[in-house]
Amino acid sequence: MMSRIIGLDVFDVRFPTSRELDGSDAMNPDPDYSAAYVVLRTSDGINGYGLAFTIGRGNDVQVAAIRALGGHVVGREVPESAADLADFSRTLIGDSQLRWLGPEKGVMHMAIGAVVNAAWDLASRRAKKPLWQFLASMSPEEIVSLIDFRYLTDALTPEEALAILRPGAEGRTERTARLLAEGYPAYTTSAGWLGYSDEKLVARAKQASVDGFGMIKLKVGSDLQDDVRRMKLAREVTGPDMRIAVDANQRWDVGAAVQWMKALAPYKPYWIEEPTSPDDVLGHNAVAKAVAPIKVATGEHVQNRVVFKQLLQLGAIDVLQMDAARVGGVNENVAILLLAAKFGVPVCPHAGGVGLCELVRHLSMFDYVAVSRTTENRVIEWVDHLHEHFVDPALMKNGRYVAPTAPGFSAQMFEGTVERYRFPDGPEWKEATR
Amino acid sequence: MMSRIIGLDVFDVRFPTSRELDGSDAMNPDPDYSAAYVVLRTSDGINGYGLAFTIGRGNDVQVAAIRALGGHVVGREVPESAADLADFSRTLIGDSQLRWLGPEKGVMHMAIGAVVNAAWDLASRRAKKPLWQFLASMSPEEIVSLIDFRYLTDALTPEEALAILRPGAEGRTERTARLLAEGYPAYTTSAGWLGYSDEKLVARAKQASVDGFGMIKLKVGSDLQDDVRRMKLAREVTGPDMRIAVDANQRWDVGAAVQWMKALAPYKPYWIEEPTSPDDVLGHNAVAKAVAPIKVATGEHVQNRVVFKQLLQLGAIDVLQMDAARVGGVNENVAILLLAAKFGVPVCPHAGGVGLCELVRHLSMFDYVAVSRTTENRVIEWVDHLHEHFVDPALMKNGRYVAPTAPGFSAQMFEGTVERYRFPDGPEWKEATR
Repeated sequence: MMSRIIGLDVFDVRFPTSRELDGSDAMNPDPDYSAAYVVLRTSDGINGYGLAFTIGRGNDVQVAAIRALGGHVVGREVPESAADLADFSRTLIGDSQLRWLGPEKGVMHMAIGAVVNAAWDLASRRAKKPLWQFLASMSPEEIVSLIDFRYLTDALTPEEALAILRPGAEGRTERTARLLAEGYPAYTTSAGWLGYSDEKLVARAKQASVDGFGMIKLKVGSDLQDDVRRMKLAREVTGPDMRIAVDANQRWDVGAAVQWMKALAPYKPYWIEEPTSPDDVLGHNAVAKAVAPIKVATGEHVQNRVVFKQLLQLGAIDVLQMDAARVGGVNENVAILLLAAKFGVPVCPHAGGVGLCELVRHLSMFDYVAVSRTTENRVIEWVDHLHEHFVDPALMKNGRYVAPTAPGFSAQMFEGTVERYRFPDGPEWKEATR
Repeated sequence: MMSRIIGLDVFDVRFPTSRELDGSDAMNPDPDYSAAYVVLRTSDGINGYGLAFTIGRGNDVQVAAIRALGGHVVGREVPESAADLADFSRTLIGDSQLRWLGPEKGVMHMAIGAVVNAAWDLASRRAKKPLWQFLASMSPEEIVSLIDFRYLTDALTPEEALAILRPGAEGRTERTARLLAEGYPAYTTSAGWLGYSDEKLVARAKQASVDGFGMIKLKVGSDLQDDVRRMKLAREVTGPDMRIAVDANQRWDVGAAVQWMKALAPYKPYWIEEPTSPDDVLGHNAVAKAVAPIKVATGEHVQNRVVFKQLLQLGAIDVLQMDAARVGGVNENVAILLLAAKFGVPVCPHAGGVGLCELVRHLSMFDYVAVSRTTENRVIEWVDHLHEHFVDPALMKNGRYVAPTAPGFSAQMFEGTVERYRFPDGPEWKEATR
């Protein structure tokens, strides 16, 4: 019997993370990690879940944007096939009036991403597979059919995408088995939040090494002398072999980025992340050329495939940091994975926040099984908080993400969490403002 | 006595323009021109008005985004000086949690633009000057202090901006007098909407010539044969001397843009507007190099100063189409005018929609008095609809915008209009859905 989507519910869920300075960096001093949380209800009783991640104020705007998509979703058949999921995505992206609010960027695009991801959750639950295996089970032709190639064809054509995907048929079973046995490599940001004391930084860096991580990341960009001291401390603790990435969260102009990195260079930072505006393709290129061999990484705020395309065309990034909830959902992220593969740039996803670890591990695992077919120089960010609120939480073992096996895309939160952290009427917030 | 902002009201105002196919183009087949309309109420009873322009659905999302800024605005002193207006803009842009929703792009940035523009309306009303004269009366130092130079300094420094502005002191009185006497040159898009018949196109093109316009614009991009026929018709009507611009509204990939323009080239189009994604700096550059001497123009969807900076750095555009209500308001548009001046690219603003003609004429007139000091190759778009709803409407005389003289920034609509077109509860919409 045909199943239909009968409702789209959205919840404003906020966690008071600013109280502990978890997540503090040079641009975001006091985030309250939040989610505009989507539930697609269906006539057969299976729900689909998705979310847009924000850091507090404005989560209500994100909720309003998701609600604005309801007319395109409620009443539709539940998507099952690649063709259904391509059509679902195209319908949301293609609303010519809503498009004016972007196009394909910011609030409206994140809203589309949340709803598209919820549709993928539904489809993979019906297929009784975790998203990464559901996606990897599609044929190259099906995968290519998911993608909107508008604005991409000067860098990637459907034929080139097929040529990237076809060799993936070979060894797919072995790679899947390897992920299930060994997981996917990770690095940790939990050592280096800007609000942490030197003592806490040292303790966390030591712990990271014990926990089996091959890379840690420090937040930088507020004060050069502080950053030099913290970087030196971290390098002393880790020894010369561990990779230490640094992350400026868009704090600098091009000139400042280059100067700052020259001061940190003696301590061998592996990559500089978000040295400047995520919109500045030429700026990233100038920084990359000036700070090599330090790598340049960006992506958590890159608005869509068109900006990633340009960063890759210029060779402006050495590491592409895909985000599961910034762009237009799985369909656009498949396009981004294929662009990265075309240009030979490793994808090391952004995670943390609320649910981003849960979501993005699926995309990296799909990448390994079907696209790049390697984990070399690839690591997923790991931030160890808020996982307890998820039904299918991200799990870490010996510095590697455990491969998820439950059907779906893992955005589902516990009902008790949604009740407790609903803003502004959940008990967590009512108590705080009393 | 000190005056304070005591309220921020927002109204969802929509005009049913899709019923007549006014405003139809290849990307926007059936727009309902709309505004998220802001009223800043003050303790001394003078209101400030601003708006974000949308094309229908999603106007409610824009309203929610403007409401989210209320906490930064209500209770503030009414801004009067350049320092106040710089601080006002910085406060809105600087909210680190709201910044996550952009940064500086899409729904949240347009919301900031609407509120910042309303603050400028307040300040220029208090100064009893139209915005263009209020702004042009500031010193070069004050003007430069308005600008957020973050991410700009690799292309434009504060010192360079000062050097551009200083010569403007000379001849300011004469240029002001000339604008008041002669107005500012315009071109008309009213001839070429895609939904119009050939007969209507011909009649409108003839009328444009009679009305004194030196340039008309046709929408293209849906069907090549149609476009060739329409372009040929228009050229026959206008003769060889009138400039005819064409506008693809982002319809093409790079390759398609180049092919399409080669087919239209025999009829001497003056510029091709929005050939591809507004996010694609490298794409615009490739098109510009391939279709020269046809000029490339873009801007109505360019999200912020960082993208304009790159378009200019590469020489990817020959014409910069500033929009009064897409970016973060007057402050950011002053930065964009100075960037354009630095790179020697003429600014020909986007207008039309709801209130864009009313707003943007102030910015071009400021440009003429204080920045570029010329109107050579500069024209403001003119679309002749919806002006009747504005208290200080844009007026056209012999193909030129009449210089506005009423104090303020001209976004104020009649109260009866707001009542009638409020969505969904105004009588215009209640009757339509009955």
